[in-house]
Formats: sequence, structure tokens, C-alpha cells
Amino acid sequence: ASSGPSTEPPDPASIFADLSPAELRAVRAFLMARPELGLSPSRGGPLAKNSLFLAELLPPEKRSALRFLERGGARPRREARVVLFFGAQAEPNVTELAVGPLPRPRSYRALPLAGGRAVPFWARPMTRREYELLHEALAAALAPLEPLLREATGGFGFQNCSGRCLTFSDVAPRGLGPGERRSWLVIQRFVEGFFLHPAGLEVLLEHRDPDPRRWAVRRLWYNGRYFGSVRELAESHARGALPLARLPEPPARRLFSSYEPRGRFPGGGRAEAHGAKVCEPRGRRYRLRGNRLEYGGWSLAFRLRSSAGLQLFDVRFGGQRLAYELSVQEAIAFYGGHSPAAMQTKYMDAGWAMGASSYELASGVDCPETAAFLDAHHLLDADGPVRFPRALCVFELPTGVPLRRHFDSDFQGGFHFYAGLEGRALVLRTTSTVYNYDYIWDFLLYPNGVLETKVHATGYIHATFYTPEGRRYGSRVHSHLLGNVHTHLVHYKVDLDVAGSGNSFETMDIRFENISNPWSAGARVVQPRLHREPRRREREAALPLDRPVPRYLLFSNPRRRNRWGHRRTLRLQLSSHAGPVLPRGCREERGVTWARYHLAVTRRHENEPSSSSIYSQNNPWDPPVTFESFIRDNETIEDQDLVAWVTVGFLHVPHAEDIPNTATPGNAVGFFLRPFNFFNEDPSVASRAPVIVRPLDPPACSRLQIRRWAPASPGPCVPPEPFSYNGTYRPV
Amino acid sequence: ASSGPSTEPPDPASIFADLSPAELRAVRAFLMARPELGLSPSRGGPLAKNSLFLAELLPPEKRSALRFLERGGARPRREARVVLFFGAQAEPNVTELAVGPLPRPRSYRALPLAGGRAVPFWARPMTRREYELLHEALAAALAPLEPLLREATGGFGFQNCSGRCLTFSDVAPRGLGPGERRSWLVIQRFVEGFFLHPAGLEVLLEHRDPDPRRWAVRRLWYNGRYFGSVRELAESHARGALPLARLPEPPARRLFSSYEPRGRFPGGGRAEAHGAKVCEPRGRRYRLRGNRLEYGGWSLAFRLRSSAGLQLFDVRFGGQRLAYELSVQEAIAFYGGHSPAAMQTKYMDAGWAMGASSYELASGVDCPETAAFLDAHHLLDADGPVRFPRALCVFELPTGVPLRRHFDSDFQGGFHFYAGLEGRALVLRTTSTVYNYDYIWDFLLYPNGVLETKVHATGYIHATFYTPEGRRYGSRVHSHLLGNVHTHLVHYKVDLDVAGSGNSFETMDIRFENISNPWSAGARVVQPRLHREPRRREREAALPLDRPVPRYLLFSNPRRRNRWGHRRTLRLQLSSHAGPVLPRGCREERGVTWARYHLAVTRRHENEPSSSSIYSQNNPWDPPVTFESFIRDNETIEDQDLVAWVTVGFLHVPHAEDIPNTATPGNAVGFFLRPFNFFNEDPSVASRAPVIVRPLDPPACSRLQIRRWAPASPGPCVPPEPFSYNGTYRPV
Ligand SMILES: [Ca+2]
Ligand SMILES: [Ca+2]
Ligand SMILES: [Ca+2]
Ligand SMILES: [Ca+2]
Ligand SMILES: [Cu+2]
Ligand SMILES: [Cu+2]
Repeated sequence: ASSGPSTEPPDPASIFADLSPAELRAVRAFLMARPELGLSPSRGGPLAKNSLFLAELLPPEKRSALRFLERGGARPRREARVVLFFGAQAEPNVTELAVGPLPRPRSYRALPLAGGRAVPFWARPMTRREYELLHEALAAALAPLEPLLREATGGFGFQNCSGRCLTFSDVAPRGLGPGERRSWLVIQRFVEGFFLHPAGLEVLLEHRDPDPRRWAVRRLWYNGRYFGSVRELAESHARGALPLARLPEPPARRLFSSYEPRGRFPGGGRAEAHGAKVCEPRGRRYRLRGNRLEYGGWSLAFRLRSSAGLQLFDVRFGGQRLAYELSVQEAIAFYGGHSPAAMQTKYMDAGWAMGASSYELASGVDCPETAAFLDAHHLLDADGPVRFPRALCVFELPTGVPLRRHFDSDFQGGFHFYAGLEGRALVLRTTSTVYNYDYIWDFLLYPNGVLETKVHATGYIHATFYTPEGRRYGSRVHSHLLGNVHTHLVHYKVDLDVAGSGNSFETMDIRFENISNPWSAGARVVQPRLHREPRRREREAALPLDRPVPRYLLFSNPRRRNRWGHRRTLRLQLSSHAGPVLPRGCREERGVTWARYHLAVTRRHENEPSSSSIYSQNNPWDPPVTFESFIRDNETIEDQDLVAWVTVGFLHVPHAEDIPNTATPGNAVGFFLRPFNFFNEDPSVASRAPVIVRPLDPPACSRLQIRRWAPASPGPCVPPEPFSYNGTYRPV
Repeated sequence: ASSGPSTEPPDPASIFADLSPAELRAVRAFLMARPELGLSPSRGGPLAKNSLFLAELLPPEKRSALRFLERGGARPRREARVVLFFGAQAEPNVTELAVGPLPRPRSYRALPLAGGRAVPFWARPMTRREYELLHEALAAALAPLEPLLREATGGFGFQNCSGRCLTFSDVAPRGLGPGERRSWLVIQRFVEGFFLHPAGLEVLLEHRDPDPRRWAVRRLWYNGRYFGSVRELAESHARGALPLARLPEPPARRLFSSYEPRGRFPGGGRAEAHGAKVCEPRGRRYRLRGNRLEYGGWSLAFRLRSSAGLQLFDVRFGGQRLAYELSVQEAIAFYGGHSPAAMQTKYMDAGWAMGASSYELASGVDCPETAAFLDAHHLLDADGPVRFPRALCVFELPTGVPLRRHFDSDFQGGFHFYAGLEGRALVLRTTSTVYNYDYIWDFLLYPNGVLETKVHATGYIHATFYTPEGRRYGSRVHSHLLGNVHTHLVHYKVDLDVAGSGNSFETMDIRFENISNPWSAGARVVQPRLHREPRRREREAALPLDRPVPRYLLFSNPRRRNRWGHRRTLRLQLSSHAGPVLPRGCREERGVTWARYHLAVTRRHENEPSSSSIYSQNNPWDPPVTFESFIRDNETIEDQDLVAWVTVGFLHVPHAEDIPNTATPGNAVGFFLRPFNFFNEDPSVASRAPVIVRPLDPPACSRLQIRRWAPASPGPCVPPEPFSYNGTYRPV
């Protein structure tokens, strides 16, 4: 596709754009045609095959990207990162390749994983094919339990079950140590919201061997008791020795796990009507061009990578870069419980294709009706690119609170002036529905140069069968249902570039000083003073989860100052209730060493692009990427290109109100990136949206001057009266 | 005003309504007519007079209020609380009375303050009259400095200064110990945003004596140096020995302290237009009747007391009371600095008539255009009721994020169902402009029974004159301006009544257990388990600011259980970055002992209505109300009527971006009150707003059923297309 002279050159942001369907097809076609790779289609066939699992953009090296963006250098070579499953090799493994150049790939090279070790085949993520085989193997193995299951569940089963089927949820990790691939499966009735309908049976299925004929049930748990085999459980039931947990018939309407309305608010007369909405009387004020988003002073490039989701690049405000990269790295949920599936569950969602689970957003529900929606394309566990319509949305949100305001009273019933600036933010959103849970990923851009990152948790809780011992690990949330305690943690990479790439990091809080009072002899003054701690090495800059965080986390350029002589600085401000998921160094904790720290600051290295990987889930004991190794060398971090790695999260003890779904109020965590002496004043003074009201005849205030720099009336979607104001407060 | 038989009886919430103008007038007239009180008007006259300072509702005792609300008992006697300044007595003092019954008061009785001690006259709040006298005294005393001031400030002065005047800001506390009333005054140029224009002069004025002829300047600070008298400073200047800080001429337009737009966002082409707004296509869904607010399942009574602001009563959801009272108690800001005014500043805003500083809210800026606005009436330091128009607003806010949602993938390109419920909250708002700062006080009601309390800080920072030593205490934010470090703390009273008044309190977090693996011999399981700590006495239930807070703070009714057998419980969840304002027991810290605890839980007593008072500001060393005394008796708090006292706040190190005003993003703190096994499921299932989409022909998903319980289109203020959805993701 040679471009004629009249074609506009592509936006520079496009170097960070996800691969187009045509590019994904080209990558796949190129690889499928390489005889030495011996690739088969992903669909069907045996597990012991070679196949393409994932293709996505391999972002350019930062050096060449900056050379292109800043100094008009050559466009960086565009490449794909692909993940190949080599199941048909003598030594089955997973290999990552870089493929390029796009759009017409000619060659590939190995992408070294950390330590240069190959990823063992048993550590690969699950595929649709493996689930198909798992389902078949499970249904076959449980055939002897069909009488038990039908009796206990009101006729639900695996065999010939149309309308009354059982299904399962699998948990991970899939074993107790390296090399294992045996999963606990929770058997559920397949009704709307089946996550909340465990039947009381959990099954440990061994599926390590690529040949499913060698798979087998190794153990079972039913209603609080363990069994060594299907036969043992079936016989116990046949003997009448098994206490059966009989589930009530699920009602045809208003099932507790569904969204169907039920009950009434007392006096909620108007609850049926539509409520408040977002509208845009003058249209959109942001610009979307390909993968570049512009709003007020903001500009950024974005992509939705299939592996780990949203990734921003080249984030600028007022033309100045604040961050080179801001991206989601991982989301985990570690559980506790009494049943084996519950105690085994330590979800690491990058391994569940978190980024590719970007299903359609509903206009008016998931994003306001005014939002712009964007599709995404993923090639993951599929034989071609798949379009995910409306995977992202962008909208301007009226925050409901002024950005800033002041009323200047004259303390005589009048005022000197009133001034205010409406509060708005641009929201860039996607969701990841990782099986039961729905994460809502937001980046918010405020007109004053503040960026907020937020993740909300909603969707179904991961719940298990209720037994009385389960109450130590959560709440009983329905007759046969336990909501298990768990910790959600999310990891972000923030490659801040504060007025350039040479940055330093310090923390700041207050200390009290006790000095002699300079205006009253003999008296003392006790008062707060700023206490700054420069953090000069990576170890000093890793702030552990179990200790309080200093309240100011400051990244500055030691060689650039604002007009008032302060180092130009960005502040990171956490909104989080994160706590440890496991004791340090203990078992699966080694797969999530990033989760040891609220914040860790490292010197940036091109070969430390991510803190986690899609392989941690199935090999947390010895994963290819270990964040701890980024800081083990304890490099100096003064005046260096730094990366801030941020962990946020919360403890979730499910409760009855999590039924049918966890709700978002109170279940959001994230962080702010705030200018802190980065500018010379609040950059939102450039906004034309403020209102200033001044009395022309103080102190009477009977005639007012209303100053606006925007039209008096915003337009037809609000009452058409122009802005009005009075400001006095008078005796009556 | 006898009510005829056709008149509707007043809403029960009216027992909590603020006094009407007629009631305020009646109270004042009654008191003015009592010869033994000898009251003079508030305006004019000497300070050594008896006068009425404040009149507001004295809320009924809880016992009689509940008897009325729940058991149809008699309407509680309606009374006013009044504050009288007895300046003309032999022993000048401040006295509080209850006056009633309203609307036709016949008698009064003394309201005992804690300890039964009278409030000394010198501890009274400032009045408009005292400020007039202070201004006169200051202008007269500084007359010899007029040449210095005019030279340094470009012609600004106190004498004959029309257009080029100086003004002052006073700080508090007003001395170093009981009995003192001497204030540091910061001299400022009177331009728009004068808080940011200190002239470099601070003056210590003694004004304890009611006779202003005995007032005097005791000390001065100019540009970093102390002086014992006006004459000493004037002479130093006359001698030419004084380094003068010459201030630049303030520009006529785009002054840095004003809201006037300046500069441009690069590429911010559409920044001039109006942006996103809130609209209500089908009108309001809440009901305001007098001081009762109803929304969805919510119902509450509210008032805006002149002393400390918003107070909610009888907060119910689904007809069930969650809290008897929820109210703001106090807001403080304690500073550090190098100039005497900065090091002296410890603002306690209840003493600055925080609740009566409820100036007009601007429609479209302070609240959306759709909001309902309500007036307030205060009688405080005035000779009759004063109407504050639009002091409060109520509006429904589209939160921009769904309340809950789930996409149920079939992992084959289709889905089992999609369901979502739009996110909305009702906001009840007022502001307190306490001189420079504007607090925005919000209560948010969510459809799922969650209540959120939030306070945003905006307005002008309290700033002092820049000297290089000042940098230890903040940032230089303009050429002659230091933004001083300070801690904002806000205190709330939450009289939770969880399914009745007999409640217990416990904290909960996780502990890790290490148990033998029940399904793999020899292996261990390390996992989280709930760790509950019942807090049986007040001391155990006081959680100090300097220690981490357990993540679950649970108030439950030990005798009421939900359907699944859990104690009905409400969870308090903090969003706060509060830290200590001073070391414990140190000087002015004794005036804010509530600020020692994130949370303290007390047994409720009618004579412990508030944690602070309007007298703390001018006598923090020995205030009439000391919160610590509420818990000193260490009462048992099991199955008792409990009150939760909540402190939230943040550390504010001002930075250049606080100019012209502190902005709201990132500067909000508060807490959530969340049902936690209080109900049997999420009560928002009663909402008729959800959308459920189900494929009629799975897995093809070519025909969808869209289920709604509200009209398909919300109406004209959003695009008129009905809701639509597709849900598939297909190869392309
Ligand atoms: Ca390193
Ligand atoms: Ca960097
Ligand atoms: Ca007590
Ligand atoms: Ca209570
Ligand atoms: Cu959760
Ligand atoms: Cu502040």
C-alpha cells in the first residue's frame, strides 16, 4: 500500500497503535508459511501441536520512538510480538518471537524471556481447545455421579442435559509446584449467573499430558468431604451413606443471580423513570484520530493490548510530556476458603487474556450515551483477527463538583466577587471481563493537568459451596453459597518523564519541630516542617505494603525548575487499601513479587518492559518474569530514566449485598498523577469556562457584572436560561 | 398559627428543621424583652455589652424524637439554642440558653456546657463589630508606617486609599494561653484574591480589653525581621536601614490571583465551547418536602446549622433506619511556617461560623443546572434572621460508571447474557467559605444503600510572605508568596443505629494461616482467614491516627440477623490521608482531641452532642468541649446506642498549581457507609433501571431480547435512538 503524494502522513501516535486486522493476518500468514515452525490451526486438533497463540504489537524501543517523535528521526520499525505454542516439539515449550517489518513481514527473531529460559509447555495459558477437551473429560469421568448430581441439583446433569445442564469453573494455579497441571473444577448449575450456583462438588482433574486420554480425576470434594475417586463417591451415595446437599429448584423468574428487578423501594415512586444523564449541548470537545486522543491541553496515544489491556504512550499536557508510558500490568485476586477450590484460588488475570476480554460496552449503561465507542481487534487463541465491537469508550464527564470556586464575602451581606470553573474530566475506558469478574479500567484527564487512574470491580464474585466451616473465610450469601475473602491487587507501570527523562525520586511528609518562639521570650513553638527523603537507590525506593506510605511521592527533574525556583515535579497520590496477599516469599507469592510494594521505582531498562507475564498464572512458583529482580541490583536512580511501579487494591470480604453482583460504589482504587510545582500556576487558567461575577456598586451589589468567555447559554439540553447569579444574603 | 382541620400535618422530619425566620424573630424578640438579660443590638455599640450572638434549633432529645417518630408519641417540644455574650456583666462571659417552646417562646433555661463552667468572655468568637474596631485600631496604629507601606507596595495604604487599599487577615489562636486575645494580622494589598498578596508586614495586635482604647500593637514582623513597636519599624525605615520588599504593580487584567483566563492549551480548539452537562430527560426522581429528602429507597431529614453546618437525621433506606444522626462537627487546618502569623495559624472553623458561611451556589458551576436549590436562614452576629439564597443544592448525578454490570461470554464469539445498571447518586451539597477556603460538603446516596460523605477543599490557600527560610514550610508559589504546609482534618459524628439502637462494634482484617493441605498429604496451605476483633470498651474502640486502621470497621446489631444468619451490619470505609496535627497533648492539640483518632466509638449520651464547639478556636488550651473526655470513662460499648466519630483529612503542601485556587481533583476525603450483610441481597435489585440482553438463538446470537423496565428511550436530552446492543465479537 504505497501512499500517493496527496495522502496525509499517519499520525505519529500510530507507532503505538495496535496491529490492524490486515497486519494480524499478514503476521499469521507469514508464520503459517514458515515450514520450520510447523504451525497448525488453533482450532481443533490435538494439544500436542505447534500453533500461534497470540499476536500483538511489539512497541518500538523507547530510544527510537523518542528519536522519531522529538527529532524527526526515522519511523521505528513496526513489529509484532507473537507467542507460539510448540506442543509438537521433542521438548514442548512456549516461544516468543518478534516478527517484522509490518505491514509485510519478512523475518522473525526470538524474543528473549527473562533469564533466557524457555517457558515450559505446561506453563502455557489455557486455550479454547483445552477447555473443550476438559469438558469432555470431565463429563465422561463424572458419568457415574450422574444419579447423585441429578438427585442433589433437581435434575441437572452433564449427560443429555438440554436446559438442565451442569457446567464448571476452573481455578488456578493448577497444582502445588512446577510441572503440575491439575485443576480444581467447581461444578455449577448452568443457570443465569452460574457462578453463584455451585452444586457442592469440586473435582481435581489432572490434565498435564497433551494427550487427554491420560487425563484423570485425582480427587473430589463433595459437601465438605474428600473422596479419592469418582467411584468412591458414587458408591458412598449408592450405599446411602452420603449426606446430600439438596439444592432448591431455581425459579423461572427473578432468580437471585440475575439482574431481573424484584421488590420495591418504599416510596420509590419515580424509580421507574430514567434519571440524570450526561449530555453535550455543543458537541464533543475532544478529538480522536486513530489511537491519538486530544482534550484541552492533553494529548496521548493509546492501545489495548491483548495480553494486559490499556497502555498509554506519550502522555502530554500543554505540549509537555508527563509520561512516556502508563499501562496496566496485572490484576490478581488471592482467596481463602475451606473447600479445595477456594483455598487453591490465586487468580492472575494476565494469564486469562485480561486484555482480550474487552467485550462490548453498552451505551447508556457502561458509558454515557454521548460516548465515542471504539472497536478492538485481538488475535489470541484464534485463527485470525477477531473484532471486539465497542471495546473502548471515550466521553467527557461532568464531575458534579466545580474544578475550583471561591465566594469572596464582604461580610456585610454582599461580596467582592464570585468565581467558579465547572468540573469536567475526559474518561478513557475499557473493561476486562475475566470470567466472573468485570474490571472497569479508567483513565481520567482533568483540565488542570491532573491524570487519574481508576479501576472498579464489578460482576460476579468467585463463590464456593457453603459449609459452616466456610464462615471463617467469608460470608454466607445465599442458602448454599459462600462469598470467599480475597484481596484484589492491580499493578501499573508508570514511566514518568518529568520535563525530560532524567528524573529523581523523593518522598515527603511532615515532622514536628520544637523551636523557641521568636516573638515571645521563653515560649516554644511546635509546628510541622517538611521532611524530605531523597531515595537514591532502587531498594530505598521500594515502599513495602506493610508499612505506611509517606504522603508525598515526588518525581522531579533535578535540572529543570519552575519560575519560582522549584524542581519541576509530578506527585503520585495513591487511593488504595492494598495489603499483602501472602507472606513474603511464600509459595505462589513468588509469582507476584511486584505485590510486595505500594510503589517501587526502578531505573528503566528496555528488557524490563513488564512486571508480569501471561505465564505467571500456571507457573507462579518460578515465573519467567520476576519483578523483584528489577530492584535486586539496587541501581542508583538519581537523574535517571525512572519507572514507577504502582500497586493498588483492596480487601474484599463478600457480603449479601454482593448478590447478584459486586457494585462499584466504594470498590474503586487507583492513583492520581498531579503536577507539583511542575507549572508556574494552575494550567487550567487557560480554560475559557470560568465565570466571574463582580458587583458594580459595592456594597449594595444591586448591579452585577457577569463575565464569561463561553456562550451565556450552553444550549438546548439544559434549561435555556442564561447563567444567572445574585450573591447577596440579606435580612428578611 | 392554629391549623384548621384541612391543613396537612407537618412532615415528621420538621422536628429537625432549622428555625424559620419567624421563629428566629420570635426568639430574639422574646430575649430582647427580658429585662434581666439586658440585651443590646449586635450592630454598633461597645464590645462590653450584652447581646444575642447566635440562635438556632436545639434538636430534640433522641428519646423523645424516637418516641414521636416510631410510636406516634407527642411531638417533641421545639426549642432554640441561643448564645448570649454577656460583656456588660461584672464577670463577662458567654452563656448558652434553651428557649422555648416555639413558635411562641415563654421561658428559657441555661444549657450546661461541659463541666458546668462558664465560657470566659475572652474565648468568644469574633464579631463584625470587633472587626470594625480592629480595623480602626490597626489603621490608626500603623499610620506612622504609611510611607513605608506605600513605598513597598506601589502606593497601597490604609489612609484615604480608595482603589489602593491595604487590608488584613487575622489568624488564630489569638495568643499562647488562656486569657489572651492578641491576634497576628497579615497585611495584604486589597486586590482580587488579596489572600495571595501579603505585603510583607505582620502585626501582633492586643485586643483583649473590651475597650478598644486599650488595644495596642505589641510586635511586628516585616520581611523577615521582628520589631518591638511601630515606631521602631518606622524609624528603621526612615533611617534607610530597612531592606524593603518592593512588590510589583498588580496588573489591571489577568492578575495571577484572579480567575481571568490567560494562556492557551496547545491545540485546545474546542475548549471555548460548553462541555458535558447533566440533564434530566424525564425530570426529577427525588422528592424534597421541607427538610425531608427522598430518593429511591432513601429518606432523611436535614438541616444546615449556623454553627457547624450540615446535619442529617433519621437516615433510612428501604424504610429502615441506618443512622439517627450524621453531621459535620469541625474542620481544622494547622499550619507551619517561618513568619509569626504562619507559625501561629491553627484554624478551627466552627469558631468562624463555618455553618453560617453558606453563600450562594452558582447553578451550572457549583451544582449542575438541573439542581434544586434551597435557601438557609441564619441568625448569627446579626439583629435578625438573614437569608442565604441557594445555600444548599440537591441533584441527581450520573456517576459515569455503571452501578454494576456483567458480560457473560460463551467464549465462542457470543454470550449468554449481558446485564447492567446505570450508575447514579443523589447529592446533597452545601459549601462553607471560611474566609479564604471553600469547603464543599457532600452527602451522596447510591441506589444500593451506600451513603458516601465527602468534603472537597477549594478556594484560596492561606499564604504568607515569602522569605527563603519559608521553603522549609512549603513552596514558593509566586514572587513574594509562600504556600504554607498544613493539615486539613474534618470531624464527623455518625450516630449509626443498625437495625435498632443496640449495637456492637468490631474491626476485621485478614491473618494468614498455615494449615496442612487436606487433599495433598505432606503439603501445606497458607491462606488468609478473617480476623475479627470485637471492641468492647471505648478505649479499645479508639483507633489512633498514627497506626494503620483495620480495613473493615463493622457496626452490627447482635440480636438481629439477615436471612443467611449474619448479624445485620453496616461497614464504615474511610477515604482519608489524615495525620496528626501536633504531638499528643501538646499545646493547642488539647483543643482538638478528636483529631487523635481515625475513628472513636462512644456510648451515646445526650450531653455529649458535639465533639467541638465555637469556643475552641479562641481557647484551644482549655476548651469547654473536650472529646477525649467522652472516652476517658472507657464505658462498655456492647449492645449499646453507639456513636462513631470519624476523622478524615489530608496533608496539603501547597504548590504553584494552587494558584489561583486549590482545585478539587485529588483534594477530597470522606467515608462510605455500606450495608454489610445488613440486607439479604443488594437492595438495588428493586431498581427498574437495569438492562438485560439475552440472545434468542445461542450461540448464533443473531436475534436478541433486550429487556428493560423503563422506557426504551430516556427522552429528548440524549440522542433519541432507543437502547441498542449487539454483544457478539466475530472474526473479520
Ligand atoms: Ca534495577
Ligand atoms: Ca521515565
Ligand atoms: Ca464514654
Ligand atoms: Ca447509635
Ligand atoms: Cu472481589
Ligand atoms: Cu489546604
